[in-house]
Amino acid sequence: MLWALISLVVSALAIGVAAYFYKWVQALPVAEGNINQIGELIRKGAFTFLKREYRILSVFAGIVSVLVLLVFPSPVWQGGIGENILAALSYIAGAALSALAGYIGISIATLANVRSATAAKKGLAPSYMAGFRGGAVMGMAVVSTALAAAALLHLLTGNADLVMAFSFGASSLALFAKAGGGIFTKTADIAADLTGKVELGIPEDDPRNPAVIADNVGDNVGDVAGMGADLFDSQIASLAAAMVIAVPLGQIEIVFCFSALGLLASVIGVLTARVGPSGDPGKALNGGTLLTCGIFALLTLIATLLTPEFNIRIWGAAFLGMLVGVIIGFTSEFFTGDDKKPVEKVAEACKSGPAFTILSGFSYGLVSVMPSIIGIGVAALGAYKLLEPLQAQSGNYPMFGISIAAIGMLSIVGMIISNDAYGPIVDNARGLAEMGNLGDDVLEITDKLDAAGNTAKAITKGFAIGAAGLTVIALLGAFQEIVRSVSGEIISFNLMDPLVFFGTLVGAAIPALFSAMLMLGVNRNSQVMVEEIHRQFDTVEGLKEGKPGVLPDYDKCIDIATVGAIKELIPAGLAAIVITLIVGFVGGVQAMGGYLAGNIVTGLFLALLMSNAGGLWDNAKKYIEAGNFGGKGSDAHKAAVIGDTVGDPFKDTAGPSINTQITVVSLVASITAVLFAAFSLFS
Amino acid sequence: MLWALISLVVSALAIGVAAYFYKWVQALPVAEGNINQIGELIRKGAFTFLKREYRILSVFAGIVSVLVLLVFPSPVWQGGIGENILAALSYIAGAALSALAGYIGISIATLANVRSATAAKKGLAPSYMAGFRGGAVMGMAVVSTALAAAALLHLLTGNADLVMAFSFGASSLALFAKAGGGIFTKTADIAADLTGKVELGIPEDDPRNPAVIADNVGDNVGDVAGMGADLFDSQIASLAAAMVIAVPLGQIEIVFCFSALGLLASVIGVLTARVGPSGDPGKALNGGTLLTCGIFALLTLIATLLTPEFNIRIWGAAFLGMLVGVIIGFTSEFFTGDDKKPVEKVAEACKSGPAFTILSGFSYGLVSVMPSIIGIGVAALGAYKLLEPLQAQSGNYPMFGISIAAIGMLSIVGMIISNDAYGPIVDNARGLAEMGNLGDDVLEITDKLDAAGNTAKAITKGFAIGAAGLTVIALLGAFQEIVRSVSGEIISFNLMDPLVFFGTLVGAAIPALFSAMLMLGVNRNSQVMVEEIHRQFDTVEGLKEGKPGVLPDYDKCIDIATVGAIKELIPAGLAAIVITLIVGFVGGVQAMGGYLAGNIVTGLFLALLMSNAGGLWDNAKKYIEAGNFGGKGSDAHKAAVIGDTVGDPFKDTAGPSINTQITVVSLVASITAVLFAAFSLFS
Repeated sequence: MLWALISLVVSALAIGVAAYFYKWVQALPVAEGNINQIGELIRKGAFTFLKREYRILSVFAGIVSVLVLLVFPSPVWQGGIGENILAALSYIAGAALSALAGYIGISIATLANVRSATAAKKGLAPSYMAGFRGGAVMGMAVVSTALAAAALLHLLTGNADLVMAFSFGASSLALFAKAGGGIFTKTADIAADLTGKVELGIPEDDPRNPAVIADNVGDNVGDVAGMGADLFDSQIASLAAAMVIAVPLGQIEIVFCFSALGLLASVIGVLTARVGPSGDPGKALNGGTLLTCGIFALLTLIATLLTPEFNIRIWGAAFLGMLVGVIIGFTSEFFTGDDKKPVEKVAEACKSGPAFTILSGFSYGLVSVMPSIIGIGVAALGAYKLLEPLQAQSGNYPMFGISIAAIGMLSIVGMIISNDAYGPIVDNARGLAEMGNLGDDVLEITDKLDAAGNTAKAITKGFAIGAAGLTVIALLGAFQEIVRSVSGEIISFNLMDPLVFFGTLVGAAIPALFSAMLMLGVNRNSQVMVEEIHRQFDTVEGLKEGKPGVLPDYDKCIDIATVGAIKELIPAGLAAIVITLIVGFVGGVQAMGGYLAGNIVTGLFLALLMSNAGGLWDNAKKYIEAGNFGGKGSDAHKAAVIGDTVGDPFKDTAGPSINTQITVVSLVASITAVLFAAFSLFS
Repeated sequence: MLWALISLVVSALAIGVAAYFYKWVQALPVAEGNINQIGELIRKGAFTFLKREYRILSVFAGIVSVLVLLVFPSPVWQGGIGENILAALSYIAGAALSALAGYIGISIATLANVRSATAAKKGLAPSYMAGFRGGAVMGMAVVSTALAAAALLHLLTGNADLVMAFSFGASSLALFAKAGGGIFTKTADIAADLTGKVELGIPEDDPRNPAVIADNVGDNVGDVAGMGADLFDSQIASLAAAMVIAVPLGQIEIVFCFSALGLLASVIGVLTARVGPSGDPGKALNGGTLLTCGIFALLTLIATLLTPEFNIRIWGAAFLGMLVGVIIGFTSEFFTGDDKKPVEKVAEACKSGPAFTILSGFSYGLVSVMPSIIGIGVAALGAYKLLEPLQAQSGNYPMFGISIAAIGMLSIVGMIISNDAYGPIVDNARGLAEMGNLGDDVLEITDKLDAAGNTAKAITKGFAIGAAGLTVIALLGAFQEIVRSVSGEIISFNLMDPLVFFGTLVGAAIPALFSAMLMLGVNRNSQVMVEEIHRQFDTVEGLKEGKPGVLPDYDKCIDIATVGAIKELIPAGLAAIVITLIVGFVGGVQAMGGYLAGNIVTGLFLALLMSNAGGLWDNAKKYIEAGNFGGKGSDAHKAAVIGDTVGDPFKDTAGPSINTQITVVSLVASITAVLFAAFSLFS
């Protein structure tokens, strides 16, 4: 009980920090002129999208909550509706809090962007602080809500199944929020780039471009709201998996202990984050991450040593998870950093044309999968082996080790989200500085902050994928645990069993189908938007030439992105869920075990490939823009822009959505396990 | 014994047919003029490459044969060297026959190309026959050699392990032959296209282009020799897997029966293949395939009904395998056929520029994975379940079902190779007709034959991947069988065992690393060749303008492709083999089981994705060239050419090499199983 209560206290503290930062950011001055007006346009566009998206998703969540009510934790027709009502309510709470996290994120991000741009007039440090503290509001709010909800559910009911239902609510919403936001942001980004940068040769955030506001809205709904929902989802899923496995072991306390101390470390990390007036913002972000890691390791070690019930091996598993997370992050940085060999090589390949740009970037993306995926494997194997000696006592200790490694990796997620949300805020600030004519000095500062955001993003993305990987492996353990509680026997998934192998093959195809559907959605929508932009350029007199007072119809582009994203997000997510159910009811528990494993393997594979290849192309373009291989406007640059455009939906739509897809599929399997353990065609 | 003897007889018959076709093709007339001279250049270039490649590979095979001698079937230090000597000899024989198959293929293909071009003067039918019968020489030679070798080894020694060693020899050579040929052909193809078609706007096979001969050589060494080695490898591997599992069951006879009848069906198929004077060559190729399938199904059914020892369920498994092969083939055709929706959509996306071309083609490629991979899963599951009722008797009947399904799918491989080798021959004929100025009527015919070759290729490629998929699943069974014979217990690979899961993750990364290394090799080499072509254009006077009598230095380009391919092929193949050994010695048998499964899953995934996306881009380009969306020279066409260039190494270098990579890794695991079952770090 103690650490669950402490979790609530730390959560309250973190919420307090979030509120303080929110007020702090809000109180910052806003520059005169049209920057405020443009900021308002962005804010309005983002909220419009969010409102329309949530309206659709509330219908979806309503339907699913009824299904949860009917079948989880046990079918109502087998009696005992009380727990099912609680599960359905937990599901709804999870979905609602996930939506709230997105809402808070947008709310602060669209305040912080204008203020960060304004603060850049006074120098780099104040501008950085506005962006970082804006991001930290999101980071603190997301993590504290997730932890508090899990602790409350545990304190009130002691039933880990309800956290599972809560997690399912959070992740089914995240699936659509991430996919919808990802489609929105890349539709606008690609359309703006192709018509603006490529065709007309005007700068990135030129106000003449009708898609420019939609592009900035997209940064918020995709990177802030979508990413927040994604990490909220991973955080709660890792808690759910750990709790389901921990209950039979009587180890719930350590789960809350490590989670609470992780959040506390993040609170300390965000409160102490600073950058010197002429300092390096990238170093500040990474330094904060490493500091948080160190504090987490130290605090949990002390707690473990002081508590006789806590085994040092469990701490070892958490520490291993965290360590591998850092390693994966820095691997991603190696493959996407613009001072490293891969980016340089791809930039060089751009000289030979777009085909070579694509081929070399894709190839390095393939190579980059290996170290991260082995890292995840090592963490899982190491954590398992670390806790294997405890096995003699009772329950599934080795699997608990994997779930604790996931908790360890996600311990510093508060810091990760803060860094990640910083990115789109300063990206927006850069756009606002450009559109509001704040001058070259300001642009130079915002450019620097933006670049740091991109570097931090590579690391946080690697972290997010690694954490999702360990979490879903732990969820596989939770699935096994739930099947055990239903059938009374510990199942194994033998690859030589053709049902398992069949499941593995089908599961492996899901992330491909899912990401293809999202990318085809972006493809379709951005073509529509490009046509609209051409229409405006052709019909609105003086727009192309930049005649003063002539403004494009920004709303039309926002509308295209909104309608398109909402239309496309449902089929992809639904396909993943429906196929999961079909496999379960056809092949039963065995096929489902293989299915989850196959889904995890190719899911991680594609997520890493797409994120890294996308980041690589993006930075190869920036490397050329910095004056290498002919610089801006050269043929190499044109090829690099094509690479970047291909990479955009890779890294910001499909890649990160796959994380959520894997989690959702794992949770669907756990929630419905009781059904297809009872009825299935083949087993 | 009976069917092993019949296998020898049918093999002799097929060799007779091959010899007859060889003479028949050789006796065809060759047009006067420089076509003969150019044909000679191609022939010489191909043999030069082959010779240099085989010299390197004979060193490699020599070293590996010593390793085989040391450890297989049991380590020499445990006594009993006699069997090991036989295994090492079998290994060498497998490698040598694989090399011979490539040699025969090149030999006939470089005769048939000139003769097919010449015959086109008389009409479509004679030209088709020259191409098809040329291909059939390869088809008959490859399949009969493989079957005869397996039958001989069985009759002389009765030891299925030796077939395993033979298969390892064939596939370790195929790995490098496929990779080397694939790098050669795409190096030349891309360099020729980029400098010729794109920069200068000259036709595909214009003799002014210094890379044009290298490009035609590449068709032979990549598509003929490489593909022949690949299918020789799949064929013998499926036999080896089936035999290892069949021996304890006493079911060797039916393996030879089905293989012999499959070859007989292919012989009938190639002998009766015809096309009318104004007929559709594509239909003729597919018609021949379906006819062969029908004959195979009928003959094996009769044999099963007439033989009391043959269970009808085994026939069912073979039939299922064949059926799924056909379905996978036609699925590939749907995703790559130029009269189908995906190609049309990608061609339409070309209008919006290269980024959309890449994104849409890649997305459809991702989608195309699903039906084929589910087909393979259904075939494996169905064959397993079909034979499960026989389990009561003894041994591993269900796994035998999967291996028989692979035999069924590969039964018509003689026909498949004939169709596949037809492609590069008529592609070459087209080039020769262009370079030899045989006139527009001839070009029209050769174009038609070439297009049919491309369609047939999509189907045969789907077939090859499907067959490799089933074969490696069967090899997983053979691995299990070998471990059982070593340790005396039937092992299972439980996905909840962290060693298995760890192995799965590492195995999943291998095909990515392997294909990335090949593609980066193509990237590097073609950039070198592009520079050389530019040098020649800049320094050889009158070359660009086509001044009569001025010829480029073709040999220099052939040399660049040769040296580059040989340099690049070793590291990729070696990496796959070495990592396999490391995983085995670290994680033991359990990790290896997971490793093989992970390798199969992402291997099939990437192979299907790359082959289909590549075919899609190729045909989208052709669709535009046929006059759609602006036709040749339009912006859409330029975008389509970029897509095609990206697709080239996808579909002709990396994609098909992955097949061989999976097989080799599976065989390495089986051959060395005895070692890491005894020594490994973790188990």
